[in-house]
Amino acid sequence: MSDTREITQALLQFRDERDWAQFHNPKDLALALSIEAGELLESFLWKSAEQANPNEIQEELADVFAYAFLLADGYDLDVKQIVLDKIKKNALKYPVEKARGCAKKYTEL
Amino acid sequence: MSDTREITQALLQFRDERDWAQFHNPKDLALALSIEAGELLESFLWKSAEQANPNEIQEELADVFAYAFLLADGYDLDVKQIVLDKIKKNALKYPVEKARGCAKKYTEL
Amino acid sequence: MSDTREITQALLQFRDERDWAQFHNPKDLALALSIEAGELLESFLWKSAEQANPNEIQEELADVFAYAFLLADGYDLDVKQIVLDKIKKNALKYPVEKARGCAKKYTEL
Amino acid sequence: MSDTREITQALLQFRDERDWAQFHNPKDLALALSIEAGELLESFLWKSAEQANPNEIQEELADVFAYAFLLADGYDLDVKQIVLDKIKKNALKYPVEKARGCAKKYTEL
Repeated sequence: MSDTREITQALLQFRDERDWAQFHNPKDLALALSIEAGELLESFLWKSAEQANPNEIQEELADVFAYAFLLADGYDLDVKQIVLDKIKKNALKYPVEKARGCAKKYTEL
Repeated sequence: MSDTREITQALLQFRDERDWAQFHNPKDLALALSIEAGELLESFLWKSAEQANPNEIQEELADVFAYAFLLADGYDLDVKQIVLDKIKKNALKYPVEKARGCAKKYTEL
Repeated sequence: MSDTREITQALLQFRDERDWAQFHNPKDLALALSIEAGELLESFLWKSAEQANPNEIQEELADVFAYAFLLADGYDLDVKQIVLDKIKKNALKYPVEKARGCAKKYTEL
Repeated sequence: MSDTREITQALLQFRDERDWAQFHNPKDLALALSIEAGELLESFLWKSAEQANPNEIQEELADVFAYAFLLADGYDLDVKQIVLDKIKKNALKYPVEKARGCAKKYTEL
């Protein structure tokens, strides 16, 4: 079994043992993901990146991944596939010759 | 190669072809992740989950994953490992007998 | 003194008594605002709007306002003015005859 | 009329002319606020605070305020009152002698 599948299986098992599928509609999963992204951000608040606590970051990042994998599962999305597809799309928006060494948004390139 | 590793490799290659590592400090990656989580949320705004556009969700979710994988890579974290570890921790916070069918936060259980 | 000015004065006094201006650069204030918006969102997680706790919402909303007013002050912005200006702009994006009873984004109207 | 009241009146008039109250339940308003906070954050992405565009910040901050005022109105909250109340609470969590010149969270003071 691929490891993205293994992650998803473990999350679904955790959810189903607690009978939580009833709460996990995609809108609330997206809320949960956004809340966890905010908690991750808090690890960097009033600090430089170097001063942030890596253990805290690991915990919050794991929560972000958990909700992201659950959402992907809810829409039957293969995580590897959607990221690789997005990279292809972004390669068109950000061609190497234009985007190299430049942090501007594609709309301003 | 595991598929989480494959995803990370593809993201790093995309980044390095554009010489973007210089912008990708962890604090800004956490910002980017939070911004993308907000864009994902926008797919659900003023709508029920059923009315949301799955293609849009796929795109935004892919962006969320991209920054999450880049952050994990920046801290040398194995994505499968940190999610499985977090599930173990959460199993202690949310024991099946207490949490079953209940959406309360562990601090209120 | 107008009440937006009174709010700002009280926030600046609280900040300066603690010598916190050194941490309050606009980028970190924007992070703080986003984190608080996430905490506000948490009051609605896995719930309908009716089930959310109004006292919690009041607390989190106050935090959101606090950072928003501090940011406005940092850029010498008059809160009433910028909101009224934005309403005028939005009136052009969302003309009454087109937008009436419709939740679509202006790009889709 | 106080200026916070004037802001709220202008927002409600804009909303009612478009018959949008039907979409503005508090949960979706909290989503909208969080989305706008993410857009504000985007003004600072991959940049120092000094490099951020003040006009963009003004626009996004105005959107944040708009949803925050609408939410406050939905719960019949007086914005000045809730911010002043929160400052009093925070003064207990962050006493001057402990918090002076220190960016730690009250739980770590």
